[in-house]
Amino acid sequence: MSVTLTALPGIPDIAPGDDLAAILGDALEAAGGVAPGDILCLAHKIVSKAEGCVIRLADVTPSPRALELAAELNKEPEKVEVVLRQSRRVVRAFKRPAQTHGTMICEHKLGLISANAAVDESNADPGTVITLPDDPDASARGLGEALAARFGMPLGVVITDTFGRPWRLGQVNVAIGLHLVPAKASEIGNTDAWGKPLVVTEPALCDEIAAASGLVVQKAAKTPAVLFRGVDWTPDPSAAAAQILRPIEEDMFR
Amino acid sequence: MSVTLTALPGIPDIAPGDDLAAILGDALEAAGGVAPGDILCLAHKIVSKAEGCVIRLADVTPSPRALELAAELNKEPEKVEVVLRQSRRVVRAFKRPAQTHGTMICEHKLGLISANAAVDESNADPGTVITLPDDPDASARGLGEALAARFGMPLGVVITDTFGRPWRLGQVNVAIGLHLVPAKASEIGNTDAWGKPLVVTEPALCDEIAAASGLVVQKAAKTPAVLFRGVDWTPDPSAAAAQILRPIEEDMFR
Repeated sequence: MSVTLTALPGIPDIAPGDDLAAILGDALEAAGGVAPGDILCLAHKIVSKAEGCVIRLADVTPSPRALELAAELNKEPEKVEVVLRQSRRVVRAFKRPAQTHGTMICEHKLGLISANAAVDESNADPGTVITLPDDPDASARGLGEALAARFGMPLGVVITDTFGRPWRLGQVNVAIGLHLVPAKASEIGNTDAWGKPLVVTEPALCDEIAAASGLVVQKAAKTPAVLFRGVDWTPDPSAAAAQILRPIEEDMFR
Repeated sequence: MSVTLTALPGIPDIAPGDDLAAILGDALEAAGGVAPGDILCLAHKIVSKAEGCVIRLADVTPSPRALELAAELNKEPEKVEVVLRQSRRVVRAFKRPAQTHGTMICEHKLGLISANAAVDESNADPGTVITLPDDPDASARGLGEALAARFGMPLGVVITDTFGRPWRLGQVNVAIGLHLVPAKASEIGNTDAWGKPLVVTEPALCDEIAAASGLVVQKAAKTPAVLFRGVDWTPDPSAAAAQILRPIEEDMFR
């Protein structure tokens, strides 16, 4: 039982309007093509950029609330305004004495909980920030279907972002958009190796793939696309990233 | 840039006192041996079992606090007692109407925050529960050094447990014991692909490896050991799983 992760080489800097499916298809072809069961894992930034989800801070007028939070947290009011526009609500906002800039933990309008509502400056042109795609599942489906047509077989797609976590330091990639790849690989109903029912075991397959992609994606190395081969999975046409989000009524930590 | 994950076949059921290093060495040899830079990722249960971290519930006398919590949560008092003994404190304890048994989110005495202080019944003999090894870093070091002596080269070791998460459903494996593998692969000081400093990017390397191992480890299939080949990492003799834990003063969610 073996799984191979390969970073696709040669992905150029992506600009709004680029045909990302064609670029990824060329990269897949250069890497030897696709095989049945392959999954393509993509850092959302190339998707966001291709879709034009880039905001010039000079075009943003901060609201009174953004001005207030920006002062509290020592952050740029324009950035705070973008974060607020991307958010359903702010879960926590704070600035510790040791911090230069504070932190906003937000519930993104897609339901994801992360720092700064996933608004990011790294790998963005100066004076701009990048937001998540408007509908990352639709983005994944669009890319997946275009690549399936080109290669003559279905291909799973996982779009990721890099999140911090409560309780644990460092960041891991998590899934924010899915095509065919199930959010969870439910083992409920299965038994363990000794025949006992696995009542609560539901591996977060989409996040396992996302986290694993970090092992070959290096931000400094322009490798935003990773091909997974050998994963044991069953395509689910109704897969959606929201299926990995804990309903608020089950959540003890917001 | 390619990383390969291979589940080591033929690991038998482990019992207290088993020579796990010898068993893993044989499995590695059967899988073709090791190469420079290899990392071995192990589900903690085989380590816990080999070290005798198995508790017979019939031997446990619940404290008054365990009896009280057990009644509130509809859990076995003996299990709650074991959880309390493994814990520094209980972060949250609750039972929702839809739940048969409640949930305890605990800070384990090693500092880890997880459900039931990582006390587990799956893959345990009936009437017993399995706890984490007393010192998982020492366990990882012991196994890593024995295997390094056998194969004539250093080998990274990551010991994992399966954790739930706030905000997201399903489970992922996280690192609870490390040998040579750094907790974080700091990119602070590096620049992104466009030359901007990556000020907060510290990929949680140990957790990326742990989560990835879930792609080839299946609980029902007795594959608790996964060999990683091709990861870009630098051995750190002072690596310890506690280095991935967020200090309480930086934590907004407990």
